[in-house]
Amino acid sequence: MSFYAVIMAGGVGKRFWPQSRRATPKQLLNIAGAESMLRMTVDRLKKVTETDNILIITNSEQEKGIRTEIPELPEDNILIEPDGKNTAPCIGLAAIIIQERDQDAVMGVFPADHYIQDTDTFVEYLRQGIRTARDMKGLVTFGVIPTRPATGYGYIQYHERTSPDEPIYAVKAFAEKPDLTTARLFLKSGDFLWNSGMFVWQVDVILKSFQEFLPEIWDSLDNIRGAIGKPVWGSVLTVEWATLRSISIDYGVMEKARNVFVLKVDYSWNDVGSWDAVHEMRDKDDSGNVTEGDVIYQNAHNNLVYAKGKTVAMVGVDNLVVIDTADALLIIPRGDTEQVKELVDNFEKEKRASLL
Amino acid sequence: MSFYAVIMAGGVGKRFWPQSRRATPKQLLNIAGAESMLRMTVDRLKKVTETDNILIITNSEQEKGIRTEIPELPEDNILIEPDGKNTAPCIGLAAIIIQERDQDAVMGVFPADHYIQDTDTFVEYLRQGIRTARDMKGLVTFGVIPTRPATGYGYIQYHERTSPDEPIYAVKAFAEKPDLTTARLFLKSGDFLWNSGMFVWQVDVILKSFQEFLPEIWDSLDNIRGAIGKPVWGSVLTVEWATLRSISIDYGVMEKARNVFVLKVDYSWNDVGSWDAVHEMRDKDDSGNVTEGDVIYQNAHNNLVYAKGKTVAMVGVDNLVVIDTADALLIIPRGDTEQVKELVDNFEKEKRASLL
Repeated sequence: MSFYAVIMAGGVGKRFWPQSRRATPKQLLNIAGAESMLRMTVDRLKKVTETDNILIITNSEQEKGIRTEIPELPEDNILIEPDGKNTAPCIGLAAIIIQERDQDAVMGVFPADHYIQDTDTFVEYLRQGIRTARDMKGLVTFGVIPTRPATGYGYIQYHERTSPDEPIYAVKAFAEKPDLTTARLFLKSGDFLWNSGMFVWQVDVILKSFQEFLPEIWDSLDNIRGAIGKPVWGSVLTVEWATLRSISIDYGVMEKARNVFVLKVDYSWNDVGSWDAVHEMRDKDDSGNVTEGDVIYQNAHNNLVYAKGKTVAMVGVDNLVVIDTADALLIIPRGDTEQVKELVDNFEKEKRASLL
Repeated sequence: MSFYAVIMAGGVGKRFWPQSRRATPKQLLNIAGAESMLRMTVDRLKKVTETDNILIITNSEQEKGIRTEIPELPEDNILIEPDGKNTAPCIGLAAIIIQERDQDAVMGVFPADHYIQDTDTFVEYLRQGIRTARDMKGLVTFGVIPTRPATGYGYIQYHERTSPDEPIYAVKAFAEKPDLTTARLFLKSGDFLWNSGMFVWQVDVILKSFQEFLPEIWDSLDNIRGAIGKPVWGSVLTVEWATLRSISIDYGVMEKARNVFVLKVDYSWNDVGSWDAVHEMRDKDDSGNVTEGDVIYQNAHNNLVYAKGKTVAMVGVDNLVVIDTADALLIIPRGDTEQVKELVDNFEKEKRASLL
């Protein structure tokens, strides 16, 4: 049995506009550190499996940037979705391709754009997850011990421990992003973990779940499987993909399956959902400012400023996020940066293509 | 008798950083409208005198930019001060040069970087000022009827009217920039006008005042006069200039002379002292924003944004001044823009020459 890692890298990360664009999405930016988030994700996974067993699923717009960023990946290991259909079809596609390579493979699914501070601890937990997926034939999720009543994450409620020695729990329920009152209750109860969007399972086990809970997607996947390595591959994929409904793996499979387990992990994790999260994560100066570039602060506190190739003077302003790029500049208060998505959605509606 | 207009264009206008730089000072910027402030000043004066009678005094750093901006001016009509010595030496130098051209000339002095909305009204008042300077052999200042208790301007207190038909008054006192309480008293009393920094007088009358109140400057001017048109001109000017003390015409002459009159003018005038003044002067959209460039406002009010060649998104921010240039970006609250001078003074101290 071999372990395959699938990195889902199809999102744009609109909330990181103006740095994130269709051709330079969030996972290709180094907003969380010196390296891009995709590079950090790949490097983490290389500690567990070989490069040939790492797959990236993306779209045609991002393909070139991703091949440039991760040049060591074999050409066939970058899969191009014809169209974004949420996580379930994407994971199903990866599963059939991996199964063709190794019937007995264990497969892990990882977002390309999350931040994990301690790689060694992550690697230990991942190995544990792989063992659990194999030993219990389960669908294993990774639940992060919450440190605050976050409203930006989904939660996983767990009950009895399945083994006295290992932090593996049966899952009682999945909860969508809560409001603050509910999030506080979750935190207080101690029964809830953050859903970090990572999964580990055997390919045969997850595909059996598709067959059971998403049979029409399974039928399409079965047709696509028949075209693997053949000249019709491209056209079959396109035709089948167009028929698929958009549905998440959480909603389509995890909430319905009985063999779902959560691995309770204890490491610093952040989905880096907005510029606010970046300010939160990164090192600050004595005035609470986070800076990329040449920035002069004069009586200015708790700002996040990213600017390249120019000098920025912040005078007497607090709690601002300022992101300057060659063709666009964003200024928004800290705490409001979720709204950036709405702004970019408006660019789409107004067909301001140069800003996307 | 002919009328000569002298435009003082030596300042940098540090408060307009990052647009104002040593080579592109405030008077060469179009911060107040479609044209540069210097161009607007020259065009106003052309309605009163011919181009050959317009002189600009500046320094070597700005010379090239000014010649490019006002190409119609004869080469000899741009005078280069070796060094900034405030207004008195600068005006004295212009006076001796004009006197060499026409003993009987009337001379007007005009800042290069003030805004006057209504040119026709200005021209009428200027003609009135020229008549007064000639008829009364007086030193004529232009006092603007105040519309608010401004603390950024000097004031002129006037008493009895000198003529029943004309808005010419004897001057009682000059007042420095007042605090707010004093400014309110000034406004309420009705006896005070804003000192707009414009003057009209006969050259022989102002030079006689130099001889009386600033005799050591007069001596230097007399030496410089002897070198006009001679090969030694440059060296004499440099040597004499180095000996001169820095002093304003207000303090050196106007506050001491007895033949001082104020022309009470009734037009919209602004010395455009800071980015705040620009926001005040310029047309606003329904949300109170003043914009140069492609700016998207989303729940953003009363901002001033100047940016070229990029899109700016202002989301949920109020009362900000945002000035973006190719190599520098300034963000500062409205109301604080006087502090920009301090910022630029610090660049000088820190020898950040590229920002000056």
